[in-house]
Amino acid sequence: MGSQTEMEHPLKAFGWAARDTSGVLSPFHFSRRKTGEKDVVFKVMYCGICHSDLHMLKNEWGTSIYPLVPGHEIVGEVTEVGSKVEKFKVGDKVGVGCMVGSCGSCKNCTENLENYCPKMILTYGVKYVDGTITYGGYSDLMVADEQFVVRIPDGFPLDSAAPLLCAGITVYSPLRYFGLDKPGLHVGVVGIGGLGHMAVKFAKAFGAKVTVISTSPNKKEEALRNLGADSFVVSREQDQMQALTGTFDGIIDTVSAVHPLLPLIDLLKSHGKLVMVGAPEKPLELPVFPLLMGRKLVAGSAIGGMEETQEMIDFAAKHNVKPDIEVVPIDYVNKAMKRLEKSDVKYRFVINIGETLKPSS
Amino acid sequence: MGSQTEMEHPLKAFGWAARDTSGVLSPFHFSRRKTGEKDVVFKVMYCGICHSDLHMLKNEWGTSIYPLVPGHEIVGEVTEVGSKVEKFKVGDKVGVGCMVGSCGSCKNCTENLENYCPKMILTYGVKYVDGTITYGGYSDLMVADEQFVVRIPDGFPLDSAAPLLCAGITVYSPLRYFGLDKPGLHVGVVGIGGLGHMAVKFAKAFGAKVTVISTSPNKKEEALRNLGADSFVVSREQDQMQALTGTFDGIIDTVSAVHPLLPLIDLLKSHGKLVMVGAPEKPLELPVFPLLMGRKLVAGSAIGGMEETQEMIDFAAKHNVKPDIEVVPIDYVNKAMKRLEKSDVKYRFVINIGETLKPSS
Repeated sequence: MGSQTEMEHPLKAFGWAARDTSGVLSPFHFSRRKTGEKDVVFKVMYCGICHSDLHMLKNEWGTSIYPLVPGHEIVGEVTEVGSKVEKFKVGDKVGVGCMVGSCGSCKNCTENLENYCPKMILTYGVKYVDGTITYGGYSDLMVADEQFVVRIPDGFPLDSAAPLLCAGITVYSPLRYFGLDKPGLHVGVVGIGGLGHMAVKFAKAFGAKVTVISTSPNKKEEALRNLGADSFVVSREQDQMQALTGTFDGIIDTVSAVHPLLPLIDLLKSHGKLVMVGAPEKPLELPVFPLLMGRKLVAGSAIGGMEETQEMIDFAAKHNVKPDIEVVPIDYVNKAMKRLEKSDVKYRFVINIGETLKPSS
Repeated sequence: MGSQTEMEHPLKAFGWAARDTSGVLSPFHFSRRKTGEKDVVFKVMYCGICHSDLHMLKNEWGTSIYPLVPGHEIVGEVTEVGSKVEKFKVGDKVGVGCMVGSCGSCKNCTENLENYCPKMILTYGVKYVDGTITYGGYSDLMVADEQFVVRIPDGFPLDSAAPLLCAGITVYSPLRYFGLDKPGLHVGVVGIGGLGHMAVKFAKAFGAKVTVISTSPNKKEEALRNLGADSFVVSREQDQMQALTGTFDGIIDTVSAVHPLLPLIDLLKSHGKLVMVGAPEKPLELPVFPLLMGRKLVAGSAIGGMEETQEMIDFAAKHNVKPDIEVVPIDYVNKAMKRLEKSDVKYRFVINIGETLKPSS
């Protein structure tokens, strides 16, 4: 059996993996599959650290399989393509986000919404179609079906591109789907972290007036000056909130802690949309009467399809939308996780895989 | 002051009113305003009994002003029109629903969404623009600005038309706005009462496959045979519910008691819509993760604009959509309220005002 696996997975790979629920990452040798007809192989240059990596490392969602190589904001340079690959060639700059497979035949798949396919395969920590476990981008090379690979536009910095593949598409997709991408709209963003700061930037690029809604008054300066938000409101200050009642066309809520929805619903105009992209573990309280009185809605959204992910990154390149990142070497990754736990990062760690991940012997 | 009011309100009117929170209705003499340039005066023939009448009679929402003449599903025949009325003439069959005024200048008003105007004036129990209190349709005559009057299509039974003006538009509008009006969709209806039974009929008329979702197994026969639903599921039977997981494009939820949303969200396909038209007094529990995973939404909707109300009643006439009603005389109204409290009606009481309301001397 060992030899069969070696035949099917002859590509030697090296990365950092967690071995147990301590979540501590350490060097790990593994292998990746033989390049299939539709596969793209690329040398990983950068990989973003997503908050969900932290959850997965510690098995906080109960689904982790160890050894676990995290990373789903992966960018690099193509080194080999399968015989039937059409979109990419050796030397291309490419990226892989949160998923590497889907059924290909369900309604969502046929509508370029692979992210909502019930058989969608995550980039790391789950079973692939061949029965092996998927490994993420905290590693030196990546193999993926070309359908799940995007092209990084020429000249777009590769380190900046990485966080777009999860944080970027997660906020871009609902802005588009819920019609919050029209110039002149008033869009709110709740929470300023990896997702929230990208939501501010994309909403601004769409031409919206953007207001950041935060519990922390000390984020005001940062939101206005660095992120380019038009205004800032402290959600705990009733006077400030009341002054904005009924003025938002939509709100992107990135907060994954339990929090009250009523103050946010009250901020919406009639027909306004509150879109959750963070996932609180416990149910939130939903007051129904305020929804009725303004035909308002509360929705959820999760990443985006591959076509839209390409559209998002092309849009980002065209409009110069880039995440604020802190680039770190691979041997900083455990420290980065500790800082991420305390939200001590503006706003995304990106691991410089290409220059700092060296195979141990 | 008395004489001024008499000058401004010279039309003698007679109806039944509640005088206090006991909610008991009894004969009541009052007056209505002089016919204004844009006003339509009509003899009331029928008035539906809406569940909100029951709440208002007893001041359960804390806003009632006594004496209170309820009724906002009002149908009758025009007896007089103001000099600048363009749409109606004496003898026309007309109706008035839940509202009789709005600001006319806000964004909602200019988009024919008077129902969401912050200054919308309810048909009874609130202050009108002239400072007087509005009185509803449990009365012999009605005066309303022509903008808030709809035409009852020729040949459509007037008693059947009455409940369309609140119950009908309340479910028609969200089916249209949320795109649940396309043939071949699978639409769920939660709760079979005044609103729910109309939702089944309109959704069927739009060409949907309709499933009734109910706590009461004994409503199955009725839902399938009488209302024409395609299928029926008991919401407390987990096996039945599980078999329908992910199969609904949308659900109209008419239940105003506190109830769990998760089982309904689970029934939705990706991108499915759960629309609340009942208003539970306490917040409901909203699980966020299931919304995210399928880009689902929970929304509210309240009645509809006047243009859409006319469209709804024209559609009902064209497609023979009629409520199931029990026509009662005015002196049955207190008994009808008691039965309504126990949901003992299929599915709407309609008061035969024209033939049973006789002015006492």
